[in-house]
Amino acid sequence: MGTASGSTLQAAAPAARSARRPGLDERAPFLLAARRERPQVTPVWFMRQAGRALPEYRVLRSGVPMLRSCQDPELIAEITLQPIRRFGTDAAIFFSDIVVPLVAIGLDVDIVAGTGPVVADPIRDERGLAALRPLEPDDVPYVTDAVRTLLAELGDTPLIGFAGAPFTLASYLVEGGPSRTHARTKQLMYRNPRLWHALADRLAEITIGFLRAQVDAGVDAIQLFDSWAGALDETDYRRYVAPHTARVLAAFENDGIPRIHFGVNTGELLTAMAEVGADVVGVDWRVHLDEAARRIGPGRAVQGNLDPTAVFAPADVLADKVSDVLLRGAKAEGHIFNLGHGVLPETDPGVLAYIVDLVHAG
Amino acid sequence: MGTASGSTLQAAAPAARSARRPGLDERAPFLLAARRERPQVTPVWFMRQAGRALPEYRVLRSGVPMLRSCQDPELIAEITLQPIRRFGTDAAIFFSDIVVPLVAIGLDVDIVAGTGPVVADPIRDERGLAALRPLEPDDVPYVTDAVRTLLAELGDTPLIGFAGAPFTLASYLVEGGPSRTHARTKQLMYRNPRLWHALADRLAEITIGFLRAQVDAGVDAIQLFDSWAGALDETDYRRYVAPHTARVLAAFENDGIPRIHFGVNTGELLTAMAEVGADVVGVDWRVHLDEAARRIGPGRAVQGNLDPTAVFAPADVLADKVSDVLLRGAKAEGHIFNLGHGVLPETDPGVLAYIVDLVHAG
Repeated sequence: MGTASGSTLQAAAPAARSARRPGLDERAPFLLAARRERPQVTPVWFMRQAGRALPEYRVLRSGVPMLRSCQDPELIAEITLQPIRRFGTDAAIFFSDIVVPLVAIGLDVDIVAGTGPVVADPIRDERGLAALRPLEPDDVPYVTDAVRTLLAELGDTPLIGFAGAPFTLASYLVEGGPSRTHARTKQLMYRNPRLWHALADRLAEITIGFLRAQVDAGVDAIQLFDSWAGALDETDYRRYVAPHTARVLAAFENDGIPRIHFGVNTGELLTAMAEVGADVVGVDWRVHLDEAARRIGPGRAVQGNLDPTAVFAPADVLADKVSDVLLRGAKAEGHIFNLGHGVLPETDPGVLAYIVDLVHAG
Repeated sequence: MGTASGSTLQAAAPAARSARRPGLDERAPFLLAARRERPQVTPVWFMRQAGRALPEYRVLRSGVPMLRSCQDPELIAEITLQPIRRFGTDAAIFFSDIVVPLVAIGLDVDIVAGTGPVVADPIRDERGLAALRPLEPDDVPYVTDAVRTLLAELGDTPLIGFAGAPFTLASYLVEGGPSRTHARTKQLMYRNPRLWHALADRLAEITIGFLRAQVDAGVDAIQLFDSWAGALDETDYRRYVAPHTARVLAAFENDGIPRIHFGVNTGELLTAMAEVGADVVGVDWRVHLDEAARRIGPGRAVQGNLDPTAVFAPADVLADKVSDVLLRGAKAEGHIFNLGHGVLPETDPGVLAYIVDLVHAG
């Protein structure tokens, strides 16, 4: 599904059939780019494309708390599909939230509008670890159900699985909510590395369980979001974070699907974030993609990286910016076009459609 | 004044006399490092050292609104001196706030505790420009008075003048307050570049006026904070911001004092931020200083860049981190030790004193 096809998602006969699941086009531009084969058009999707900027999303979410929308297979599927219908992006991203697996194993976490995740009992000592048990597919039946529905609906459009990485999950659990400085989290790392590693190890296990449910249900790729890793310098990242993220990504090494890894403000971490086992490294808008590709090294594709505020530019300025991203991205071995961070809620959906057209026109 | 000297600041006879002002030691480590001569000890000061973490600051500020404390020459001087007395840092930074020059020319800006600057009438069209007139020394008599008091008190310790750069000032004025995305500011740049450049030009003029008052009163260096420049990619920075910042720094080219330039999240902008005319480029904690020196290029010193959260580490871990910064900084032509961003309010002042000792011990 390379272009928008109106409101129906009953796919035409796919160009090729996947060994993994019926319907999927193994030559879909998204999969080719992730495998560093050269697709005819550059694939494009938008981080957090499901939701926020779409009026049809706001209608669907009206009166429905965020967490509940992530636990209802019909809502998950519908929200995941909305941007595909509207924009014809080259991949769908499974609608969820970074804290869903934590809630699934029984932690008291809520997502408060305007604030973000709020953790009732922050984890700051050994005792807190006891609450962190492994996640089984049975803990997230709505995930398995939603993936199955989606695969039938999506036809030849690949579906990307979604999870947060151990550091970012740990930051929410240790801080008790969003943090600008991650001071308590770093304090725990520095003062009690044994506890830190035990915490990150359990979170890696939970993340593996959450992604395993999605992969076994049939998603065609995974993206691991380490949203806040950019708060760390490279030394701390390699010491405290990389081993746990590597464990997560290694768990899907033999599944034959692309593993994407992304965090914002990670210009100095790109080499390390590639080395943890990513097939595709997401890049925020601050780093030119050609320079990012140099840091990421050979054997990997890049994803990104239009400034999310570029959507507010006039058409000609925006077109220049898209063109610059495409030119620089072409210097990487593979390039999946995306924003350099999530879609801003005030974005005009018409501009996102324009970007898809620009990218597909090359 | 290379070490803490208790509660009095009556300096001993200085080792050398400055042509610029009596008392100053032109061979002070801070000035030598800024000039890329090798001082015997690495100089150290802390961004926002004046205030926040110090109990004596909180006592002084009790019941005094932020803006009023920046308009009272006695308070300015006292707050500027507090960290020198306590830590014996190698430079004092003039206590002020980024919006002080805007208030001085009559804009309705307040600093709201827990929020930051709030602008009553955000500037979003030509009409808004009319409010921005040049700043004369007479607009900030408290600045001139405080600098004179400080120079007498500081003796041989250099005093760094303080101002915000045009982009960061513009962001507050356009957004109406702090912004995570700077979306309105970028929107103005992209949609109305003529208005943007007119706005930035006026802000450059105001910034020059504010720094001119400090330099003519005798400060020994200036630091221009472009706190939020790191929200821009290099292309936008060079197009929309660099010319205005360059104009500010060029205005002090013949004053014979070091010009320091800093913003957070600016790893990808270091080359451009050096090229605007900085003698010393401040570096946030994400970029290793040796790599930063490479990006900044020859003929300039670096300043930074310990992670501000490193203060929460145990003494041995902290000492390793300080040592790593010193080792990497030694590869630059000149190195002034600092944090990679401002002191966090919850920092234990005793730890800052320990860092000063570590840096001076080499």
